[in-house]
Amino acid sequence: MNEGEIFIHEYGEVDLQDAMVVIGFPSVGLVSSIASNFIVRSMKLERRAAIISKRFPPYTIIHEGIPSPPVRIYSGHRDCENKGEKCEKLAVITCEFMPQPELIKELSNDILGWCKKKGIATILTLEGINIGEEGESKVFGVGTTPRTRKMLETYGVKELREGMVTGISGLLLSEGERYQMDVICLLGSARIDLPDARGAANLLDVVGDMLPEIKLDPDPLIKEAEQIESDMQKAIESVQQPKKPAEYSQIYS
Amino acid sequence: MNEGEIFIHEYGEVDLQDAMVVIGFPSVGLVSSIASNFIVRSMKLERRAAIISKRFPPYTIIHEGIPSPPVRIYSGHRDCENKGEKCEKLAVITCEFMPQPELIKELSNDILGWCKKKGIATILTLEGINIGEEGESKVFGVGTTPRTRKMLETYGVKELREGMVTGISGLLLSEGERYQMDVICLLGSARIDLPDARGAANLLDVVGDMLPEIKLDPDPLIKEAEQIESDMQKAIESVQQPKKPAEYSQIYS
Amino acid sequence: MNEGEIFIHEYGEVDLQDAMVVIGFPSVGLVSSIASNFIVRSMKLERRAAIISKRFPPYTIIHEGIPSPPVRIYSGHRDCENKGEKCEKLAVITCEFMPQPELIKELSNDILGWCKKKGIATILTLEGINIGEEGESKVFGVGTTPRTRKMLETYGVKELREGMVTGISGLLLSEGERYQMDVICLLGSARIDLPDARGAANLLDVVGDMLPEIKLDPDPLIKEAEQIESDMQKAIESVQQPKKPAEYSQIYS
Amino acid sequence: MNEGEIFIHEYGEVDLQDAMVVIGFPSVGLVSSIASNFIVRSMKLERRAAIISKRFPPYTIIHEGIPSPPVRIYSGHRDCENKGEKCEKLAVITCEFMPQPELIKELSNDILGWCKKKGIATILTLEGINIGEEGESKVFGVGTTPRTRKMLETYGVKELREGMVTGISGLLLSEGERYQMDVICLLGSARIDLPDARGAANLLDVVGDMLPEIKLDPDPLIKEAEQIESDMQKAIESVQQPKKPAEYSQIYS
Amino acid sequence: MNEGEIFIHEYGEVDLQDAMVVIGFPSVGLVSSIASNFIVRSMKLERRAAIISKRFPPYTIIHEGIPSPPVRIYSGHRDCENKGEKCEKLAVITCEFMPQPELIKELSNDILGWCKKKGIATILTLEGINIGEEGESKVFGVGTTPRTRKMLETYGVKELREGMVTGISGLLLSEGERYQMDVICLLGSARIDLPDARGAANLLDVVGDMLPEIKLDPDPLIKEAEQIESDMQKAIESVQQPKKPAEYSQIYS
Repeated sequence: MNEGEIFIHEYGEVDLQDAMVVIGFPSVGLVSSIASNFIVRSMKLERRAAIISKRFPPYTIIHEGIPSPPVRIYSGHRDCENKGEKCEKLAVITCEFMPQPELIKELSNDILGWCKKKGIATILTLEGINIGEEGESKVFGVGTTPRTRKMLETYGVKELREGMVTGISGLLLSEGERYQMDVICLLGSARIDLPDARGAANLLDVVGDMLPEIKLDPDPLIKEAEQIESDMQKAIESVQQPKKPAEYSQIYS
Repeated sequence: MNEGEIFIHEYGEVDLQDAMVVIGFPSVGLVSSIASNFIVRSMKLERRAAIISKRFPPYTIIHEGIPSPPVRIYSGHRDCENKGEKCEKLAVITCEFMPQPELIKELSNDILGWCKKKGIATILTLEGINIGEEGESKVFGVGTTPRTRKMLETYGVKELREGMVTGISGLLLSEGERYQMDVICLLGSARIDLPDARGAANLLDVVGDMLPEIKLDPDPLIKEAEQIESDMQKAIESVQQPKKPAEYSQIYS
Repeated sequence: MNEGEIFIHEYGEVDLQDAMVVIGFPSVGLVSSIASNFIVRSMKLERRAAIISKRFPPYTIIHEGIPSPPVRIYSGHRDCENKGEKCEKLAVITCEFMPQPELIKELSNDILGWCKKKGIATILTLEGINIGEEGESKVFGVGTTPRTRKMLETYGVKELREGMVTGISGLLLSEGERYQMDVICLLGSARIDLPDARGAANLLDVVGDMLPEIKLDPDPLIKEAEQIESDMQKAIESVQQPKKPAEYSQIYS
Repeated sequence: MNEGEIFIHEYGEVDLQDAMVVIGFPSVGLVSSIASNFIVRSMKLERRAAIISKRFPPYTIIHEGIPSPPVRIYSGHRDCENKGEKCEKLAVITCEFMPQPELIKELSNDILGWCKKKGIATILTLEGINIGEEGESKVFGVGTTPRTRKMLETYGVKELREGMVTGISGLLLSEGERYQMDVICLLGSARIDLPDARGAANLLDVVGDMLPEIKLDPDPLIKEAEQIESDMQKAIESVQQPKKPAEYSQIYS
Repeated sequence: MNEGEIFIHEYGEVDLQDAMVVIGFPSVGLVSSIASNFIVRSMKLERRAAIISKRFPPYTIIHEGIPSPPVRIYSGHRDCENKGEKCEKLAVITCEFMPQPELIKELSNDILGWCKKKGIATILTLEGINIGEEGESKVFGVGTTPRTRKMLETYGVKELREGMVTGISGLLLSEGERYQMDVICLLGSARIDLPDARGAANLLDVVGDMLPEIKLDPDPLIKEAEQIESDMQKAIESVQQPKKPAEYSQIYS
């Protein structure tokens, strides 16, 4: 029952040939976790795989009574207006914790390797971006290949010309560019100090252009995003560790 | 005299074919440690094995004058009304420290592997859960398989539909689900800021339904749980480290 | 000139067949270090071996002008009234620092393995125990085998029935019990906040029953113990590190 | 998709036979990062390679819409007045983070090894140096070989006779001297407490003697350096991490 | 270009048959670094080797315009009145940083192994020792063999009978004694809170008896030692790291 440092477990056969995969690890304002969970719920995707490592924080996510590892891969079919990209299948990789910095390169490479093996056509990674007090919400995009930069243009997403992207999204971009795999990163402006359902909604607005079958009536969207944000917070509170009295702290560490 | 990172030492032959194993690592309010110790005492189980690692904190537990490693496995026979689950034998894995986060996956996998090798039928892991000020005590359950979810229903335990479970119990759930082994986690509400004998009693109330031969008259149960809690605290105080004067701290670290 | 992680270097041939070995690593009130040094001095034992590891703190102990590694093994012959235990030879393992927690299991296993190889009959490890403000001094004992528990009875040492023992002594007990080697741990009450010569004297009082040839007139004993305590403190002060001015701290770390 | 600890990825064929390579890792006042970025921009060098390690901080640099790893190698052709050194080709290695101290020796050795393999003629590493309040700006040089010390003389750079150089530049010097490779380090005085465009300009003044085709009109130079400094700061601000509310910090670490 | 953890690089052929080697790693009051640098300067020794490790702090020492690794080995010839010890050749190992504790045993063993291979006759390691406010300056000595203890007597150095020596000197003593190699440690009293040129002078006073060809007129000696101390401090200040503004600290760590 012992596997390598990081590996991807598939619960059954997983066919993702030519699929789009959306990736949402936590970022500024948690917009990417909220947005990726929204897609899973609204498109009723099913859990198909999980990314597992003994170096991830030790907890399980319970969803509909079923326990899963913290990094889950959901998938399902799409009904999309084809604007040029392949779009029959959709997968979402989502989690609620930030991996340790020293794991991020390996994790990104493992995700890219798995996407290649599965024949995935497009990788879409979501990020929050802090643009200060300006209030105005914007979504920027970065692509790793001529094809993905063309897609940004097609969907009217403003290109980020100069800047930095950190974390899993950053590594998916630089490693994806290095191997010339099709990776797009969407960066949505968000408030940095709290889970930001509205920021997630802005991001989903662009994702919605690419995945038009997602229902995106503005008001329900924000309410749903707020619900997801609230569920995440409650789940986390329920596992709060006790503030142990001093005399236990020696042994219980 | 050198073994691997984590291993399970059996003091003699251990037959646990079709047994139920109860697992109590420390959690919110220490309810799982208190409850698992209560079962060991009230059912007069005997020490049969221990889990050993050089990465566990270095101490020994003295019980009836006999020193043991900190993670002990006790077992014995049951006299139970069979409600469907196999119940001839019972084992309890208990300890008083929280393993380092990076050990928890390996430890959980080793426990699952050992349970499989021993032919154990059901794994029952105990957890505390923080439900704030509400006062009302509740016990929730999570199961990894149709059979265990059916058991929760049989015993009238409310299912936790959405949430998180951390630590050993969390990994026993997600890894148990992955390998489709029968794991149940019972989560009892507890006060987070102190050892909570009453919270442990609530948890034992449900365990008592599954293990009806445990005597569970409410008053003695709480007293006994308080006694266990007090014994644990005294043992820990007795090994308090000296606050060393400054001039020793350089060498004595 | 490179050896393994922890190893035992013998300066010459060391015959300890059937010997008793007394082990004193620092503990509450430093009673075990003080007591074990007292035995070395009063019985004029000679340095015969040392335990060496690159993971021990880097210093040497100078004794009578001769430098030694921090963990030394002294031995010599005894003239004892035989009360049943084998007693022709005596060895003492002593040091003044606490090994890092992650080394303690390996160190204990190495000591047990060496004792077995040398044919040592009885291992006697010394510990301090904090029993708060009660003033009354007591010595408790734990044995790993029927023979050692019988010895505790013979010498009138009260058995510790329930409790915890940490550090090297804790691991010598649990691993000794696991391999059924004869290990006794004596726990002497001590003040936790300073080197406690009087606590060491209480402990020596029991050791003195087992090793009656040690001269134990109460007053000189306490004075001698105080002298040892004072020597240890002076030695440590002499190597105090400079509080370096800020501008050096960057390079000198 | 897994490579060693540190490796140099070339995006295509890279011919740098007899080239000069300028190296700018961050230093006092960030002068070396600013100066090396200035050379890349003003000489319109193209990205040809990158240094990659899972132990570097996980982020990507977006330049002209293209994502790259944080340590990039740019190159191009020069039109120089030959004063004796070989000068047909120029490469610049630049990044904006300081590698962990324990990586620096390996990184320096890998750069030296790559330079040797590529047949690079001269390595020019840039550093900031803190000379306090004196106001007067100076540039000092150190060379590893008679040829490089002669070059310092030719260009009128004052030699640093006694002192210390830390970081990548320090190791390129001591290891370069050990292997007798031609390494020059230019140390420009800088304010230590902020990105110092003017300090970078002073450094570029000397570099400009060696690379006279760089346009170095004083005013535009400082403005351009300030622009680079401002771009770097904006990019960094955009990825500021959220100050997460307390209840998230447990899971999100 | 990759070597082991710690190794000794020789810049050319190094003949030290029957030589004395003086070792000065930083200690209380920096007396050993100051004293060993003094010997290098006053006897005009030449750099012959260096000790190299990727685990040493990453910097280079520039001396007379030549960059070297931080731990340098200098050597030259002596003109000494032979008082019994072999004295034709002299080497000095000197550096200005304290190696990490976990490197010290390996480093000491490597130095001893190299000394043995080179046929070095006597190892003389310098230390500072804190003797509080007493004002009176003293030098103590420890020897590992009858021959070295005899030397201490010959030169009238008071033996340290009981005590502790930490760091490289401590390990050279205990490991030297274990292998019966000729090691002397001279411990000079020093002020602990600042570089102590006068303490270094006291130490040099004894070294001067063993190496009488060193010119030791008291006043110039202290001035020279003060000069060395001041050079060391200036070099260190010149590489002071910037106090980076908050917005850079995330990336630049």
